[in-house]
Amino acid sequence: MFTPGPLTTSKTVKETMLQDVGSRDYSFVDAVKEIRTELLQLAHVSKEEGYECVITQGSGTFGIESVISSAVGKNDVLLILANGAYGERIVKMSTIHQLNYHTIRFEENEIISGEITEKFLQTHPEITHVACIHSETTTGLFNPVTEIGKLCKKYKKVFIVDAMSSFGGVEMDMKELKIDFLISSSNKCIEGVPGFAFSLCKKTELEKAKGQARSLSLDLYEQWAGLEASGQFRFTPPTHSIMAFRQALRELEKEGGVQTREQRYKMNKKILDAGMAELGFKQYLRPEIQGHIITSFLYPDDSNFRFEIFYKKLNERGFVIYPGKLGKTDAFRIGNIGQIFPGDVMALVAAVKEVLEEENVLTAQS
Amino acid sequence: MFTPGPLTTSKTVKETMLQDVGSRDYSFVDAVKEIRTELLQLAHVSKEEGYECVITQGSGTFGIESVISSAVGKNDVLLILANGAYGERIVKMSTIHQLNYHTIRFEENEIISGEITEKFLQTHPEITHVACIHSETTTGLFNPVTEIGKLCKKYKKVFIVDAMSSFGGVEMDMKELKIDFLISSSNKCIEGVPGFAFSLCKKTELEKAKGQARSLSLDLYEQWAGLEASGQFRFTPPTHSIMAFRQALRELEKEGGVQTREQRYKMNKKILDAGMAELGFKQYLRPEIQGHIITSFLYPDDSNFRFEIFYKKLNERGFVIYPGKLGKTDAFRIGNIGQIFPGDVMALVAAVKEVLEEENVLTAQS
Repeated sequence: MFTPGPLTTSKTVKETMLQDVGSRDYSFVDAVKEIRTELLQLAHVSKEEGYECVITQGSGTFGIESVISSAVGKNDVLLILANGAYGERIVKMSTIHQLNYHTIRFEENEIISGEITEKFLQTHPEITHVACIHSETTTGLFNPVTEIGKLCKKYKKVFIVDAMSSFGGVEMDMKELKIDFLISSSNKCIEGVPGFAFSLCKKTELEKAKGQARSLSLDLYEQWAGLEASGQFRFTPPTHSIMAFRQALRELEKEGGVQTREQRYKMNKKILDAGMAELGFKQYLRPEIQGHIITSFLYPDDSNFRFEIFYKKLNERGFVIYPGKLGKTDAFRIGNIGQIFPGDVMALVAAVKEVLEEENVLTAQS
Repeated sequence: MFTPGPLTTSKTVKETMLQDVGSRDYSFVDAVKEIRTELLQLAHVSKEEGYECVITQGSGTFGIESVISSAVGKNDVLLILANGAYGERIVKMSTIHQLNYHTIRFEENEIISGEITEKFLQTHPEITHVACIHSETTTGLFNPVTEIGKLCKKYKKVFIVDAMSSFGGVEMDMKELKIDFLISSSNKCIEGVPGFAFSLCKKTELEKAKGQARSLSLDLYEQWAGLEASGQFRFTPPTHSIMAFRQALRELEKEGGVQTREQRYKMNKKILDAGMAELGFKQYLRPEIQGHIITSFLYPDDSNFRFEIFYKKLNERGFVIYPGKLGKTDAFRIGNIGQIFPGDVMALVAAVKEVLEEENVLTAQS
């Protein structure tokens, strides 16, 4: 699968799910503890340094909403920096929860501008929190979180980063990046199966969320307090998914950690770029802002190309790609993450070539 | 595992999870469709008759909150009938979402009284919705949903039933019981693994929920509309858990459907009751109101009995039981649901006997 998650996981990760464990049982409680500790380590922080890990049942969205609707208080003001569907998702949540917020929108094919953000912060001192997406899966671009983090530090704002599709596949140091809340999920670069989201939180900020949540299920503070008090979840956790995730973390370590994984993904991306370019495909983004997680390719300028057929024929050959999500441009996406290795990418490119030929699609190169 | 879920699932259900599937892929979309149709069938209703099935990521609580915070509008008034922790959970949600609501509380060891409920409905015509728990997992009692359903019909109230731990293990006909919203989850009597909740909804009521939700993730109407429009989820679904659930549904059918499963659970319960009584254990509830899903046993009246040790020693022998959740009474719980058969229950009783002897615990019988 060349999707941005759920993605291909290892056989051994999946095999962990062949056992049922009780949600209040010792072995499970131990696994949860191990996971929470290790996730902090991956972000180069620890409990001792004042960081906490909260696991939330559901998809990544549930984790994001848990943070947004718990951390931003009644009198707080959130600034959302948006340049894609996932930034807009935070806007949507903020509207539903009737938060005080501002949005700065950038073009989908442009990264967030630190300059514009800084000017806005200077003229809007009421802002208390800033949120942005690290790897915008809509397009595949990487936003400049280092730069925005510095601004948050300078202007004393709480910094919330949706690192859904990048955490574990990109080295990130929460302290260095000045991130107060970082959210990702089980089925992304750690290469686990879907079932939960996790939020890495600066404890002092997490504690302020007490009593601020707008729902029971997505109460970030209470979820954390529950885990701290008994090691158990307030509500049934996805036990199999969690046990699989612990195995995934162990395999990440075995692979050499985040840095090595990042190298593998970058290699996948390099092979993909070269292969697709050779077939005449153009990318949506300019290379400087394109991340190595997922890439948007424009539809070939030929009426013979019909995405549904292209998708289906690749599918029949065992390759699952991802549709586009752009407002105005026709594109499809190919992910480089998961248990995918250079050989798999080469095989995908070969299959793409075959399908194009079968469908008589002319690309720029043909 | 003798827990109320996550519970023991079959090997073949778990083996389904050895494959990764894309969340937007045909095979997955088909599985979701099949599941949604079959769940309605289990409740003896169908799309054609005006019922719909909505799947919500997360635990059962997420499903309940999705219904409560979507179906009860700003000007609606909810009546909560509570006699245990799960009834109180609905009260908690209603408080957080600032719904208009009334609560009638009954003793934990008593079922909901139709008479009291009717009187309340007569004097509170402002009530629009009534919510209760079918199988209160706190104690194991079954509330009289037939009787409450009749009242809802008579007084024209929308009827919401949390059938979390009973649906699939107890024959329930939504139409006959006049239920408008019935909620359960993947890891209960259908015998799947945790990961999602499902809500069976009367379509006319579901449609009224449009625009009423208090969150993005738990928006019942939008979740349904998304599934209807494309067959896909708005946000990443727990793909493995869903594929396992389809297999669980097939195995339920193979077992002979809900009726046959109900018989098996009742047989488990019978053997458990007899065995535990012989060992001198007393039950918390009087038998007339005790359901066949889970049973609360009182701690033996002997200071040698220490639950932690009892639990641990059973655990070491491969038997996972469940702690109590009662306000004032010391008790533990044993579930009869999941892939548990009479032989397993006998083995559990034998292990309980062994542990009591090892610990020199005197029960009423000894």
